[in-house]
Amino acid sequence: MKHLLSVDDFADRPAIEAMLDLTERFVAVSRREIRKVPALRGRTVVSLFFEESTRTRLSFETAAKRLSADVMTFSVASSSVKKGESLLDTVRTIEAMGVDAVVVRHSAAGAAARVASWTGASVVNAGDGRHEHPTQALLDAYTLRSHRGPSLDGCRVAIVGDVRNSRVARSDVKMFHALGCEITLVGPPTLLPERLGGWPVTVAHDLDEVCGEVDVLYMLRIQRERIDQACFPSLREYASRWGLTPARMARCKPDTLVMHPGPMNRGIEIAAEVADSARSLVAEQVANGVAVRMAVLWTLLGAGGTVV
Amino acid sequence: MKHLLSVDDFADRPAIEAMLDLTERFVAVSRREIRKVPALRGRTVVSLFFEESTRTRLSFETAAKRLSADVMTFSVASSSVKKGESLLDTVRTIEAMGVDAVVVRHSAAGAAARVASWTGASVVNAGDGRHEHPTQALLDAYTLRSHRGPSLDGCRVAIVGDVRNSRVARSDVKMFHALGCEITLVGPPTLLPERLGGWPVTVAHDLDEVCGEVDVLYMLRIQRERIDQACFPSLREYASRWGLTPARMARCKPDTLVMHPGPMNRGIEIAAEVADSARSLVAEQVANGVAVRMAVLWTLLGAGGTVV
Amino acid sequence: MKHLLSVDDFADRPAIEAMLDLTERFVAVSRREIRKVPALRGRTVVSLFFEESTRTRLSFETAAKRLSADVMTFSVASSSVKKGESLLDTVRTIEAMGVDAVVVRHSAAGAAARVASWTGASVVNAGDGRHEHPTQALLDAYTLRSHRGPSLDGCRVAIVGDVRNSRVARSDVKMFHALGCEITLVGPPTLLPERLGGWPVTVAHDLDEVCGEVDVLYMLRIQRERIDQACFPSLREYASRWGLTPARMARCKPDTLVMHPGPMNRGIEIAAEVADSARSLVAEQVANGVAVRMAVLWTLLGAGGTVV
Repeated sequence: MKHLLSVDDFADRPAIEAMLDLTERFVAVSRREIRKVPALRGRTVVSLFFEESTRTRLSFETAAKRLSADVMTFSVASSSVKKGESLLDTVRTIEAMGVDAVVVRHSAAGAAARVASWTGASVVNAGDGRHEHPTQALLDAYTLRSHRGPSLDGCRVAIVGDVRNSRVARSDVKMFHALGCEITLVGPPTLLPERLGGWPVTVAHDLDEVCGEVDVLYMLRIQRERIDQACFPSLREYASRWGLTPARMARCKPDTLVMHPGPMNRGIEIAAEVADSARSLVAEQVANGVAVRMAVLWTLLGAGGTVV
Repeated sequence: MKHLLSVDDFADRPAIEAMLDLTERFVAVSRREIRKVPALRGRTVVSLFFEESTRTRLSFETAAKRLSADVMTFSVASSSVKKGESLLDTVRTIEAMGVDAVVVRHSAAGAAARVASWTGASVVNAGDGRHEHPTQALLDAYTLRSHRGPSLDGCRVAIVGDVRNSRVARSDVKMFHALGCEITLVGPPTLLPERLGGWPVTVAHDLDEVCGEVDVLYMLRIQRERIDQACFPSLREYASRWGLTPARMARCKPDTLVMHPGPMNRGIEIAAEVADSARSLVAEQVANGVAVRMAVLWTLLGAGGTVV
Repeated sequence: MKHLLSVDDFADRPAIEAMLDLTERFVAVSRREIRKVPALRGRTVVSLFFEESTRTRLSFETAAKRLSADVMTFSVASSSVKKGESLLDTVRTIEAMGVDAVVVRHSAAGAAARVASWTGASVVNAGDGRHEHPTQALLDAYTLRSHRGPSLDGCRVAIVGDVRNSRVARSDVKMFHALGCEITLVGPPTLLPERLGGWPVTVAHDLDEVCGEVDVLYMLRIQRERIDQACFPSLREYASRWGLTPARMARCKPDTLVMHPGPMNRGIEIAAEVADSARSLVAEQVANGVAVRMAVLWTLLGAGGTVV
């Protein structure tokens, strides 16, 4: 494996499960008092973020530092990209400086793949437009498996909210499906994909009908600009129909789990009481995100040898 | 000691003096050619600055790096806080990534304490609104003690300027008082606290009356926005009445020392000639700031063992 | 050698050639799998950039990290400089924190020299106004020598474009001349120096006349704001008369090399086909930039001993 651009880069279910098994070992490292291994000493990882995402960038950079790699941050807000430099030249410049892995976030679908085609370094897609966010899918799978595993066969997952515009949803559908889950997409028709050709999912519009049936409610973040686009009438309306309220949570099975990729809009897609409840896996998702990214960087950079 | 939120977190004068003694050892480290010790290898320190302060942030980050910790910078200007994430969720996200200490700067009094209540990590208050800035008080005490110590009993300190809005003044008053100093606050009535209930200080409005009597003139930074708030008529008027001019300096005792927390407005609260004179401790304050922060991080993270 | 402020800081040609020879050794380090040497462990390098230049900053910071130095970034956009702090106080603050080298980029000619006069740390000029950019000249010389060396005596170099406003041109003219090259400046009269008193160059306005005669075409970046200043009529006009098009390239000798300091305006001063051709040394320039800066920091900080 040279790059991680899409969940499709995993050949099959065992390949995904091997990555989750490897993650397990880095979770153990993360629980030590000294959370650092020398695996990538002398290697350089660059984060190349054309969209800001402090959370995702910090997660990758923390992962790289725990592997003892050097980290460079290429912040586009203040870069020569602003002076009109092409993406191609930016990538070549970074590569020429001697980089082993590039972590790319970009607003255009396919940007990470284009970067990969231009460089000899390994590329990790940290989100490209509405396309994919494969490490998010890995950390979601790892987190869910740690509660419902070892096998996720038959696990019923509802993904709720703005599926149409979400790269997280796109990667999660592929990932959960590959691991044997049954997936339902829930939201207003304006926020669900127009066509479902090939998506291995069922669709529902009424969250109340779905929530009692599923093992996991995966709540997506609402982007406020969608209101202006008339995708739904108001935040209040959205919260009352598709938000995860305590009342709705009470109608779920007692062991239904709640996930969210963050950052949360408390009171909109998820009530504060739910976000803070024992059934919310949000903090675990963040914690596992660092370990997953350690596993991915370790694998792509072919560090080999033992993890420790 | 788990957190450092306020000067009040020190149980008593010996506890403060122990921290200053420890600082001494890190000052020695800072004078070596190799200014680095392995004490916090594998630990992670996050700087979480909701107000920009490059100076304070660099001082803490330099301290953490000299202790061999990994440093993550959570820059709020470009973070999910802008997307509406709550402070609580930001703190939980950072903690979930596996952090040992959080250095917080925030415009709201009490913010650092709130962060501390939400996390298992150690929290250092790097300035919260008009409330406190305890490491500034420690570095000021260390700097003064290195010139007037070992005991500061009876040392007369004038704190001059915008005391009302200054967290530095608030922490310094507590610190200098705890160490036995006699404190006079000097400034226009509009910039002094409205009530002094419990402050162990005397108050004066005329700097000329005070300056010949004191051992230390601690000049506070004037924030230009106070003019708009009609706290004083003009910068020129302020400089002539409460600025430390060479003429005023000449009326001081020959060994009166000058301190300032920086950044200085040369020509306003302090004349360039005074700032650059041999009696100015400004550069020493900055240098000692790194050592103080090493001592604080080393203590909070319970590194134990020898400093090396 | 304490500072590197100008190409003039090299006493003579052998001094420059010694630095290029040292660079050779760091190029070798950069080609290893583990591109890191412990030479500057425990030393601190600060990048102090008053003009943004992600490329140059990353190159210096990568160089410092490969030497195992700690790197601090003093980002002016968010610093106390904005609060009115003087350059002098900024430099003193940084120095007081205990810094071994300061890398300065500033819009004012002479700024780096002023910083050097105020600090005991070593200063590297990373570009000061229209004055100089000596590490760019070193990396250009190293890159050219690796293709046309060991001696550059008699090598014919055309520097094309906005010479008048270019610190790169100013440093390169000194550097290439010191190494024995013959230099021709090419561009519209509005973009060439008004007077050439003492410049060891010839001048031409017609690129077509020159391009068949030279060994190297060094294309400068066009800054779009020059159009507004009526230095030339339009980008299209500029590209057709002074841009390096494939047609023009075809009229060059078969071994004429192409250089550019980056970031490139593809389609303006250089056509994409030329930039991407085998004769373009642009990526090598970037790669060698890291090694040159390792050599400079290693020399200034007197690391001594073997490079390893």
